[in-house]
Amino acid sequence: VQSDNNGMNGNGVHHVSVRAHVSVNPAKLKSHRQRWNVRPSEMSKKTLNPIRAIVDGMKLTPNPEKPMIALSIGDPTVFGNLPTDDTVLQAMKEAIDSHKYNGYAPSVGYQKSREAVSNFYSCPEAPLEGKDVILTSGCSQAIELAISVLCNPGDNILVPRPGFSLYKTLAVSMGIQVKHYNLLPEKSWEIDLQHLESLIDDKTACLIVNNPSNPCGSVFTKDHQHKILAVASRNCIPILADEIYGDMVFPGCDFQPLAPLSSDVPILSCGGLAKCWLVPGWRMGWILIHDHNDIFGTGIREGLVKLSQRILGPCTVVQGALESILNDTPPEFYQGTISFLKSNSEICFSELSTVPGLNPVMPTGAMYIMVGIEMEHFPDFQNDVEFTERLVTEQSVFCLPATAFEYPDFFRIVVTVPEEMMIEACIRIREFCARHYRPRSQDSHDLDQ
Amino acid sequence: VQSDNNGMNGNGVHHVSVRAHVSVNPAKLKSHRQRWNVRPSEMSKKTLNPIRAIVDGMKLTPNPEKPMIALSIGDPTVFGNLPTDDTVLQAMKEAIDSHKYNGYAPSVGYQKSREAVSNFYSCPEAPLEGKDVILTSGCSQAIELAISVLCNPGDNILVPRPGFSLYKTLAVSMGIQVKHYNLLPEKSWEIDLQHLESLIDDKTACLIVNNPSNPCGSVFTKDHQHKILAVASRNCIPILADEIYGDMVFPGCDFQPLAPLSSDVPILSCGGLAKCWLVPGWRMGWILIHDHNDIFGTGIREGLVKLSQRILGPCTVVQGALESILNDTPPEFYQGTISFLKSNSEICFSELSTVPGLNPVMPTGAMYIMVGIEMEHFPDFQNDVEFTERLVTEQSVFCLPATAFEYPDFFRIVVTVPEEMMIEACIRIREFCARHYRPRSQDSHDLDQ
Ligand SMILES: Cc1ncc(COP(=O)(O)O)c(C=O)c1O
Ligand SMILES: Cc1ncc(COP(=O)(O)O)c(C=O)c1O
Repeated sequence: VQSDNNGMNGNGVHHVSVRAHVSVNPAKLKSHRQRWNVRPSEMSKKTLNPIRAIVDGMKLTPNPEKPMIALSIGDPTVFGNLPTDDTVLQAMKEAIDSHKYNGYAPSVGYQKSREAVSNFYSCPEAPLEGKDVILTSGCSQAIELAISVLCNPGDNILVPRPGFSLYKTLAVSMGIQVKHYNLLPEKSWEIDLQHLESLIDDKTACLIVNNPSNPCGSVFTKDHQHKILAVASRNCIPILADEIYGDMVFPGCDFQPLAPLSSDVPILSCGGLAKCWLVPGWRMGWILIHDHNDIFGTGIREGLVKLSQRILGPCTVVQGALESILNDTPPEFYQGTISFLKSNSEICFSELSTVPGLNPVMPTGAMYIMVGIEMEHFPDFQNDVEFTERLVTEQSVFCLPATAFEYPDFFRIVVTVPEEMMIEACIRIREFCARHYRPRSQDSHDLDQ
Repeated sequence: VQSDNNGMNGNGVHHVSVRAHVSVNPAKLKSHRQRWNVRPSEMSKKTLNPIRAIVDGMKLTPNPEKPMIALSIGDPTVFGNLPTDDTVLQAMKEAIDSHKYNGYAPSVGYQKSREAVSNFYSCPEAPLEGKDVILTSGCSQAIELAISVLCNPGDNILVPRPGFSLYKTLAVSMGIQVKHYNLLPEKSWEIDLQHLESLIDDKTACLIVNNPSNPCGSVFTKDHQHKILAVASRNCIPILADEIYGDMVFPGCDFQPLAPLSSDVPILSCGGLAKCWLVPGWRMGWILIHDHNDIFGTGIREGLVKLSQRILGPCTVVQGALESILNDTPPEFYQGTISFLKSNSEICFSELSTVPGLNPVMPTGAMYIMVGIEMEHFPDFQNDVEFTERLVTEQSVFCLPATAFEYPDFFRIVVTVPEEMMIEACIRIREFCARHYRPRSQDSHDLDQ
């Protein structure tokens, strides 16, 4: 390699005139930082949690005369009224005592644990084996891996509105565009299929279907799911089915997993222990790979395996307990949870449906109720965020404004709180609305009198 | 919106000639996929695990006459000879029985658990509080978050060669360039500091320092670490210190965490329960944020919080047990592990250092020994991969070829196996080498006789 420290280039030509402009030591010509300048990455800046953004922007000062009632937290365990089953805890302790679950598992999970999940969910129309299951750190990581393997930056995905915010958070951080398709409250939150189909273009990499729904508490009929599948099939779009609330549906309502209804659409179904087994902190989730016609092929399967090797799967103790958790938890446990959720939902629905200005939509599953606000009757507030903010200030009741789910003029109530709390909260919401309700929007100038 | 189904555009001009080329229904003109074409994302394809790539490419058929001895697996629990302490298991069972750790924790971990970690690692020169700790799903996720928050696509990071492969796997998948700096076997695997500094440019976002080292088993002196810090300081490069093997050093050797030695360089120190507490499957890791001079500022801290919200931290049961695991595990437990590792290392080193053609480097920490192969004396093999492959075929001993760590002509031995296995493995390696060794490379043509 030539040295031109003497001010000559390889041809012996003097370069002094050029050097004269550069007053640094030639050895230091290579640029490097001269001062500290450590900035968070674009990716971290693009990782936006709308719930946090909205809630952190709210002035949440409860009325000191009323104890706070939080109907905002999607964690069924916070009030202690919905403990997990003893079988579940026992299975964990046995896993610990066995001394067998301290080492590394394969990054996609122990084969036995994967088989426990595939046996639990397999059915003749959509048979599953251990190899079709990827264990993940919560359903959140299942969703992250599914989006990561299906989408490239510049692609778009279709997500429900209103819908769980994580889909958008993850997609946007990865440079994937989000297109929202509408759910129709007047049709029990069914998908506006025409709208859905109108959004599809050649950059659409994935359709996310969340059933039962957070935040709607809705459960799709078999018929509706056939129609969703028809859209996906016609347009050759794979589906990410977020079925974390699967089986968490009220008596009389029938939950149908999506995959058994399809003969061609490849589906990654995401689930986990968080909701039905009431242990969200344990971070046990999974992806079920449904691929009747070998459309995912080995590419997607290997992609998922590779991605799982980044952080190496969920806690092995929970993996060790999984078989017993799935097989030995008594049916009464699930039924108990469900009948509690249904009863609380009915209390909440029947209380709020007689409150002028509010339109609750009765859920049939999951653990949420969406409540419409006739904003024109509440001229004191600009929007659902102000409405719910003042509900805290005056009544110490906190519901999430549905703007957090891209759906203004609604709020979401979590129905896992103890019954007395639910009743008390409804009374306070009624009082709050009575105070701020104006019968007709034209009358709003009466306010000034 | 105008309809031109009649073949006219808005100006009434016939467009039949144009339409003639397009035989589809105008309503379907919008492009959408006509057939299934689901491909794994670029990111998943770029997530390459070199260990898997190399091992999967090897023909690993053990000699049926000798039982297999795997010296390849970096999991100290596989042989059952290194159980975790009872305190650790007891802490888990108490966390389960408390019923307090089933719900969601904050995504960065429970405050109490973060404080348990900060108390454990805080020292006067580098004080830590709970807010300086982010709990993660294993040290792997700690590394992933640290790289994610510090680097943008197009940046580069500096990683050790030989070194743990995850750094490259993660960086490459994120579009971050990897530059390898050399470690010097003849100087106990110290960093070639000149080489390190020569790699720095204005796109260098982070220097990764792994001490004690996988795969080298080396531990840097205080003095050497001061020099590393000087390079980082001069060039204003933050450090990711992978100290997962911290404190796992042999008696007589002193492990110094990096952060207390620096007064200015901002450091993200990554660690976890995997190695020192012998429970790698539990997926409990952490990032310690060291930032004396507020160079990371709130930006990096908030970035880490946001990134943690993607998949919501480690299993809450382990979080609940963390305080007791850190505070109540008796010193004898750690000492027991260390003296076992030291004794096994000495056996292995003294056995192999008298084998012609091999040059083991005595470790002072972690759980690995690197062994140099004088390839010119083993003309039967092209490289370390072939050497270790044949060692399996002939002697049923499997060591990882150090090509997996970007360091050809070495192999790595894991020293966590039971002593008898270690001895037997060394005998077999000696036998293998004796059979294939050729005294001088010039004599290699003698082979044909
Ligand atoms: C629809 C939906 N999907 C996924 C998740 C995430 O589940 P996990 O806690 O297992 O990550 C939630 C959690 O609230 C959810 O509501
Ligand atoms: C140097 C190094 N860093 C990080 C890790 C990953 O640790 P964890 O299992 O906690 O993710 C390992 C595991 O072998 C390692 O050797």
